[in-house]
Amino acid sequence: MSAQACGPTRPIGITMGCPVGIGPEIVLRFLAEYPGDALVRPVVLGDPGVLRRCAADLGLAGRVVAWQPDTPVRPGEVPVLPLSELAVADCCWGAPNARTGKAMARYIEEAVRLIGVGALSGMVTCPITKTALKAAGYTYPGHTEMLAALTGTDDFAMMLAGDRLRVTLVTIHRPLAEVAGALSVEAVARLVRITGQSLRRDFGLAAPRLAVAGLNPHAGEGGMFGDEEERLIAPAVARATGEGWQVTGPLPPDTVFFKAAQGEFDAVVCMYHDQGLIPFKLLHFADGVNITLGLPIVRTSVDHGTAYDIAGQGLASPVSLAAAFRLAADIAVNRRRFDQGGVHDH
Amino acid sequence: MSAQACGPTRPIGITMGCPVGIGPEIVLRFLAEYPGDALVRPVVLGDPGVLRRCAADLGLAGRVVAWQPDTPVRPGEVPVLPLSELAVADCCWGAPNARTGKAMARYIEEAVRLIGVGALSGMVTCPITKTALKAAGYTYPGHTEMLAALTGTDDFAMMLAGDRLRVTLVTIHRPLAEVAGALSVEAVARLVRITGQSLRRDFGLAAPRLAVAGLNPHAGEGGMFGDEEERLIAPAVARATGEGWQVTGPLPPDTVFFKAAQGEFDAVVCMYHDQGLIPFKLLHFADGVNITLGLPIVRTSVDHGTAYDIAGQGLASPVSLAAAFRLAADIAVNRRRFDQGGVHDH
Repeated sequence: MSAQACGPTRPIGITMGCPVGIGPEIVLRFLAEYPGDALVRPVVLGDPGVLRRCAADLGLAGRVVAWQPDTPVRPGEVPVLPLSELAVADCCWGAPNARTGKAMARYIEEAVRLIGVGALSGMVTCPITKTALKAAGYTYPGHTEMLAALTGTDDFAMMLAGDRLRVTLVTIHRPLAEVAGALSVEAVARLVRITGQSLRRDFGLAAPRLAVAGLNPHAGEGGMFGDEEERLIAPAVARATGEGWQVTGPLPPDTVFFKAAQGEFDAVVCMYHDQGLIPFKLLHFADGVNITLGLPIVRTSVDHGTAYDIAGQGLASPVSLAAAFRLAADIAVNRRRFDQGGVHDH
Repeated sequence: MSAQACGPTRPIGITMGCPVGIGPEIVLRFLAEYPGDALVRPVVLGDPGVLRRCAADLGLAGRVVAWQPDTPVRPGEVPVLPLSELAVADCCWGAPNARTGKAMARYIEEAVRLIGVGALSGMVTCPITKTALKAAGYTYPGHTEMLAALTGTDDFAMMLAGDRLRVTLVTIHRPLAEVAGALSVEAVARLVRITGQSLRRDFGLAAPRLAVAGLNPHAGEGGMFGDEEERLIAPAVARATGEGWQVTGPLPPDTVFFKAAQGEFDAVVCMYHDQGLIPFKLLHFADGVNITLGLPIVRTSVDHGTAYDIAGQGLASPVSLAAAFRLAADIAVNRRRFDQGGVHDH
């Protein structure tokens, strides 16, 4: 489903992320080559001065202009909603401080507010760090938790999406030794449900085909290499099936991703971080998109960090940002269409 | 290193595997198209009657002939060393019994014996099952343990190899919940050593570049998501480095395989089954080869099972067998060269 098909939609906000990371550079690189699509307009929530200095320092094209609502973006223009005016002295590449942290948080807060009042149809986030948030006095461990708090949500999940593979994670940042103990029938069934709902509403798939990976080698091989499949995952699959989802599993982890990449499944529900991230990054190292499922707003994110080590060096790639913007636009269109009652088959 | 470069070598034996699995079919398919390379000759250790009936039933080309040592294999010929004469009544596809199990074990024992007396330079094994071994009264859990016993080895390891990725596994068939507890500095350092030795001797790499994957998300991120990296894996890497190996790690598991596939590393030492198998099968679903490291003999294996569910149906692919044969031939040549004192750089 391309955004084109459903008529004009409100702009998508791009938060500039940490001003001393690679955010400003990827924003400039992406928009300098943006074809000026009048149907899904981008607007950068950020700092015009930082962007201008970044363009000058790195010799990047892209003319920073003030964002005008309802005005098409012309090729080569970088339309910015100015939300900070950071001084040169505060902007040392790779060294966040209280002022850069505060500015960065403000881009996010304002994007959420503008979506809430109907001025934007969704947001794409450039990377931030916990360190930078902390410097500004925020205690959120990251973007997703901040957005959940700002939108009053507590039932969210992460999806990584690319053209060949989509994965969601039952557990995320846990030591591997604690993964098995953190699984439950409810946690797995919940993730199948959230993943299925997103495939229907965000990706426009009327009858999504879900796979659930096992936890153990060969999915436990009948209990020989672990019993979580029989005890937890199979009952969760049965529960989700009972709710009407088309779901297969638990499947042997070492073949399910190949099958999904071949087109057999629309997404794979994974039990732990690396089970999903290893195959995802192998196929989508540069162009992966991170989507937060369960939020009342459309939010995608680049699939990389602030990369302080290469900030300001002209080495950053806008490929993930471009993919995240395209997907946010598609999701915004698909959600509108879904909420109006129509989905299409895959 | 192609086998071509070093002059004639002794034949490579192909054990036919379980007579009622897909072994006979893949042997016929592979040899029917074998170009008749006089330098690395194949010989099938198996059952000529089973092969002839399989060819007739499935309409496969390939003329089964008696193996003549020192005689080149002509295109279209399937040279067999006859080691069993199974009756038609004993050969129901997918149903192993005591007689098929005994025959299958004899192919393996004879291959080891012939390598021992210098008649063969290595062996490639078609799949067997524990069930079939058990039916014949053997208690080995699988091929590898049987070969270890036949060659008096107990320090062996498994490598999966393809053109884009090679992985070795510190733990194999263990429940995920037990993986962390099964790791030790010694186990990881030992696998780095065995992997490095194989890259030098079997793959002809003078200065192999080894990667060691972490166990936890982001390789533990400084202890936030687990301490096995600091406590066990980093000391093992330090020990291996001290022994002269060029080894990097512990590296974040979700990016190390992409880097290896891009050519940055010659092999990745993995902490558990799916950490290595998920990326390996994504890249080498059909053409992966399983190599047993640490044996005094050259042994490669197809990277799939007996596939009883499709045996006798004409659906089996010989791609993995062809890759396993080619690699066994290369390893035989490289080992000879290495043992004579020469390796080449990658």
